[in-house]
Amino acid sequence: MPGNSFGTLFRITTFGESHGHAVGVIVDGVPPLLDLSEEDIQKELDRRKPGQSEVGTPRKESDIVHIYSGVFQGKTTGTPLMMILYNQDTRPGDYEAIARLFRPGHADYTYHKKYRIRDYRGSGRASGRETAARVAAGAVAKKILAQRGISIIAYTLRAAGIQCRTFDPGVIEKNPMRACDPEAAEKMVERIRRIKEERDSVGGIVECRIRGVPPGLGEPVFDKLDADLAKAMLSIGAVKGIEFGAGFRAADMRGSEHNDQMNAQGFLTNNAGGILGGISTGEEIVFRVVVKPTSSIARPQRTIDIDGNETEIITEGRHDACICPRIVPVVEAMAAIVIEDHYKRQEAMWK
Amino acid sequence: MPGNSFGTLFRITTFGESHGHAVGVIVDGVPPLLDLSEEDIQKELDRRKPGQSEVGTPRKESDIVHIYSGVFQGKTTGTPLMMILYNQDTRPGDYEAIARLFRPGHADYTYHKKYRIRDYRGSGRASGRETAARVAAGAVAKKILAQRGISIIAYTLRAAGIQCRTFDPGVIEKNPMRACDPEAAEKMVERIRRIKEERDSVGGIVECRIRGVPPGLGEPVFDKLDADLAKAMLSIGAVKGIEFGAGFRAADMRGSEHNDQMNAQGFLTNNAGGILGGISTGEEIVFRVVVKPTSSIARPQRTIDIDGNETEIITEGRHDACICPRIVPVVEAMAAIVIEDHYKRQEAMWK
Amino acid sequence: MPGNSFGTLFRITTFGESHGHAVGVIVDGVPPLLDLSEEDIQKELDRRKPGQSEVGTPRKESDIVHIYSGVFQGKTTGTPLMMILYNQDTRPGDYEAIARLFRPGHADYTYHKKYRIRDYRGSGRASGRETAARVAAGAVAKKILAQRGISIIAYTLRAAGIQCRTFDPGVIEKNPMRACDPEAAEKMVERIRRIKEERDSVGGIVECRIRGVPPGLGEPVFDKLDADLAKAMLSIGAVKGIEFGAGFRAADMRGSEHNDQMNAQGFLTNNAGGILGGISTGEEIVFRVVVKPTSSIARPQRTIDIDGNETEIITEGRHDACICPRIVPVVEAMAAIVIEDHYKRQEAMWK
Amino acid sequence: MPGNSFGTLFRITTFGESHGHAVGVIVDGVPPLLDLSEEDIQKELDRRKPGQSEVGTPRKESDIVHIYSGVFQGKTTGTPLMMILYNQDTRPGDYEAIARLFRPGHADYTYHKKYRIRDYRGSGRASGRETAARVAAGAVAKKILAQRGISIIAYTLRAAGIQCRTFDPGVIEKNPMRACDPEAAEKMVERIRRIKEERDSVGGIVECRIRGVPPGLGEPVFDKLDADLAKAMLSIGAVKGIEFGAGFRAADMRGSEHNDQMNAQGFLTNNAGGILGGISTGEEIVFRVVVKPTSSIARPQRTIDIDGNETEIITEGRHDACICPRIVPVVEAMAAIVIEDHYKRQEAMWK
Repeated sequence: MPGNSFGTLFRITTFGESHGHAVGVIVDGVPPLLDLSEEDIQKELDRRKPGQSEVGTPRKESDIVHIYSGVFQGKTTGTPLMMILYNQDTRPGDYEAIARLFRPGHADYTYHKKYRIRDYRGSGRASGRETAARVAAGAVAKKILAQRGISIIAYTLRAAGIQCRTFDPGVIEKNPMRACDPEAAEKMVERIRRIKEERDSVGGIVECRIRGVPPGLGEPVFDKLDADLAKAMLSIGAVKGIEFGAGFRAADMRGSEHNDQMNAQGFLTNNAGGILGGISTGEEIVFRVVVKPTSSIARPQRTIDIDGNETEIITEGRHDACICPRIVPVVEAMAAIVIEDHYKRQEAMWK
Repeated sequence: MPGNSFGTLFRITTFGESHGHAVGVIVDGVPPLLDLSEEDIQKELDRRKPGQSEVGTPRKESDIVHIYSGVFQGKTTGTPLMMILYNQDTRPGDYEAIARLFRPGHADYTYHKKYRIRDYRGSGRASGRETAARVAAGAVAKKILAQRGISIIAYTLRAAGIQCRTFDPGVIEKNPMRACDPEAAEKMVERIRRIKEERDSVGGIVECRIRGVPPGLGEPVFDKLDADLAKAMLSIGAVKGIEFGAGFRAADMRGSEHNDQMNAQGFLTNNAGGILGGISTGEEIVFRVVVKPTSSIARPQRTIDIDGNETEIITEGRHDACICPRIVPVVEAMAAIVIEDHYKRQEAMWK
Repeated sequence: MPGNSFGTLFRITTFGESHGHAVGVIVDGVPPLLDLSEEDIQKELDRRKPGQSEVGTPRKESDIVHIYSGVFQGKTTGTPLMMILYNQDTRPGDYEAIARLFRPGHADYTYHKKYRIRDYRGSGRASGRETAARVAAGAVAKKILAQRGISIIAYTLRAAGIQCRTFDPGVIEKNPMRACDPEAAEKMVERIRRIKEERDSVGGIVECRIRGVPPGLGEPVFDKLDADLAKAMLSIGAVKGIEFGAGFRAADMRGSEHNDQMNAQGFLTNNAGGILGGISTGEEIVFRVVVKPTSSIARPQRTIDIDGNETEIITEGRHDACICPRIVPVVEAMAAIVIEDHYKRQEAMWK
Repeated sequence: MPGNSFGTLFRITTFGESHGHAVGVIVDGVPPLLDLSEEDIQKELDRRKPGQSEVGTPRKESDIVHIYSGVFQGKTTGTPLMMILYNQDTRPGDYEAIARLFRPGHADYTYHKKYRIRDYRGSGRASGRETAARVAAGAVAKKILAQRGISIIAYTLRAAGIQCRTFDPGVIEKNPMRACDPEAAEKMVERIRRIKEERDSVGGIVECRIRGVPPGLGEPVFDKLDADLAKAMLSIGAVKGIEFGAGFRAADMRGSEHNDQMNAQGFLTNNAGGILGGISTGEEIVFRVVVKPTSSIARPQRTIDIDGNETEIITEGRHDACICPRIVPVVEAMAAIVIEDHYKRQEAMWK
């Protein structure tokens, strides 16, 4: 099966290239009678759009969403929801120079090898712009989950080597890093500004917390809740790893230390990150993803062209020096899609 | 959809509980005319079976595989391959004591919450024994991949806080830890012996390397090769995280450092771990998974019973103090299933 | 994807060849806490088994079902149900003669072309025996549906050119044709006896009625309830067509005649066969399938061998002169699987 | 899973309501480097569009297709193809009157029962207009199949009680009925004109022939080629039955008559309709579907409103008196999608 769909009972299929006519998504499995407007979607898209701060790209994509089907008189009808964002502010001239070159860290080489043809303009289908479609779909999932009492927040936990030391959800949307610690956020911005001046980029870690998930979500043995979240996260271009709860620290831990003991009030710790045996425990679900440094940097790098000739490349253009703050809404969107899907699957089992 | 199947064109469905009649697997999508015998499968199963060393459990499961369909006169026929392993050496008496208790770190609580009934004997469906079915299926995938020139090896990279410093594939199957560094292996064994005496357990890290994968495998945007590998790995009970290539180190790296530059001979580095934009680059695929400490420990831990009453539990029984060496063949099996599936998907695209 | 699975939320995967070790099925998606025993399954299997009457084959397959997983202390656990039937009374000698020949009307030729290898013993995977696995799975679905107030009956409506003129569900299991009209049944038996003496076979029509289905089942636009029933029925080897409600008669009908008008008590007619726009209306679901004459006949027929040489073949062996009565439980089983699957899907939509 | 997708390796997902903003389709699994333009699609759409003749509706839908993704510089890129048709000539006033009534023969009642909300304008999602999206997707499949040497033609075999007596493929597109016999076509037109004057409608039978399919397509045991064709056809709103080859006539046939014998040149007959055991034989694939009379008729019919009150309804508007000629391209489109999908699946098996 081709790979542009995700989910089972709540299922999305995205389409579109960065500099083609549009990007968009069909969401199949939206329950009927949900109040839904373009504003519901737009507010999430605005969090992902470029041009929000100096750590990001100055590109202005309008990212205006249109709902073309599945809503009637302000309510969903149970039929497929198609949402589209037309592409604007495309400057093909920026990209013609690299039509024949493989930018290091980009998917240029692999798309060329896989498909023998690629829309090289702005990375085409491999562009981060494709995630706008996911954020639109995720906004629908988040709205449904909110009615179920489930909330999802993601934030930058670490960037440019600076770690958040405090966790204040109230500050996340108030600093350009979407960090959970305002002091760390300031340091991150400062350091990233310097890195940007050096024509370089840097990575980070985004953490996600999901509250209100009842125990019982996740389908052993393969469609475990953590397995599906891992797939969802690794399907985001810049993400190179994921860990749940204690995560990689568990490698050095003892069973007596890692096991989450219980008393009548519940679990005493949450090293499992809210998932045991692939099924939600009812505790907060906690995971972290590592975000690689943005591949596009305005420095000379060694590469080859499509004929195999060696050359150097400088990726000019308008790019994010650290993509973490813009990955945050994408992580939330994909997490929402997974949780909503598994919520329905669990309910269906008992019917 | 229920969650007991994995893969698309090469698709497995497992069944069975630890102390039921049998565990097994249907493999659908095996090409016809492949020479296949029970010996091909058995040799992989023997690597997973318990009782191989002092770091593992002394339980003796015979783990004898039977092929019941899909093979005729020594060759596969293209019809479903059903492989079964009957359960033996089951001692239900060991488990009756815990029928009403939730063992910390186990899936007891979540299965109880999800299904309101569970086969509590030996963890039932949540038992590591279910992975024997995966190893059987993976053995088929590995045999096919070998004919394609693709090899997969996994090994313990770290356990009980001890990291391998060298990488010698020849030693992996020659030490009880399946570590890639014989000196580290010795230290691991020694330390785990002490931990076992303390009635405790410990975690570790398993690394996997896949060689010979041509560029082009992986289906953007959701069924990326790394996304499907991540799902496969997180579907293994004890795995709590995964990272590709530079992995979590990428959080602190610069773009100029993380980007894998190219010359006419290929990539100069492999921070991407062999996957860019979700598609294989042709470089070695490298990932690591973190394995949590075995949950079953013979120490008193706080827990509750199914009526919510507080109590203490000591998980007696025969358990692995560090499960890494027995996870190794499971990691290889699941990786083989993912790679074979994507190999077919890529070939199908061009047909 | 390989083709040995069917269904989404209630999903079956069958395995096994007619003269291999066993045939069987994994059912994934059985709800937990359902009382289930081998007797529940066996009674349906006994309706399908050969040797029930003179119109059928005198072969005695014991068809004893074993449940190997998914049931604990007499109740389902929500984990995969594996059911197996060991093959017995296999006489390979009967089949060696045809190892290199293509029997007319059989799948020998197409399996040879598709797979380049085939287990020719008793038609291998293409044998009607594979449907025993479906009947086992269907027995589970029927048990669940009964609790939902949904009942399914199929019966021979026509065979050997004789049409039932009355409909009495009470007689179906009391005559060897499983016909709904006892007088027609007698004539059918008589005529088929003569056809059998002529070393020939004959076809028929099986009708199915499903009662108690609430309005709303079926997922437009592709997974319509009639579309999925059609797929299920055409997946039965001997079935060559299906029609719903007025069926092919609708070709000559006027809209004013075919449209089912309504009053406050419901629909005045049921030309739609209980399905409108792919969704159940709440009326009885009615469809008919045409069953081709059994391909195995003990008469000389022209054919070729696997090298293309012309020859004649006489299919000796023990075969059903009219397969309709044994198709009846298979039709019911597949219908039950479709209805249960869609029931869950409809429920899931509203969750 | 929601039901708006069809196919596995060649997979389509449609969206849109009749009188919403647009209808359209995402096609996933189109091979890269195929020359593809909007003209390729438009020519098929023009065959389906309304207003072509007096037997059809006088509505003028422009049905102009736009390709929004998946094509770059005139060639497909292997990424999802999104095609959209904006809705025009919508006259909501025509439909407000029936917002609260269930038109007999329509999906109004079942959509209301299933979703508790429906876009009643022009039947919304249940409109025949949704099939425009299928025809667009089918045009892509047909183009690929043509390169494989596979051709698909469908035509009206019977309408208003008149049967074609000759088969001349050259005349199909030259008469308004798309019948294969020009004399029968004339009679059909004449009779349908009278039926139309009587404010009534009538049904018919569409036959489809597929040439050039190699032996081996179809995946036993469930995804048989005929099973998937049956599902595809029954997913078309007006289709109420399907039969392959000899079809329902097989009910009265003997095995000696129905079996297709072989000589060195191939099959001597084609009662199987080109499919044995669910796998293509290499012979022409032949099937027929029954098309019910158009539900919308301008005669008073008894019905109820959404509150259950009895009333009468006259479905005014511009409707086809016999939908057969416009179903023809939809049948071809769905057949093409099935064949292309199975072609890829068969190729994938051998890779």
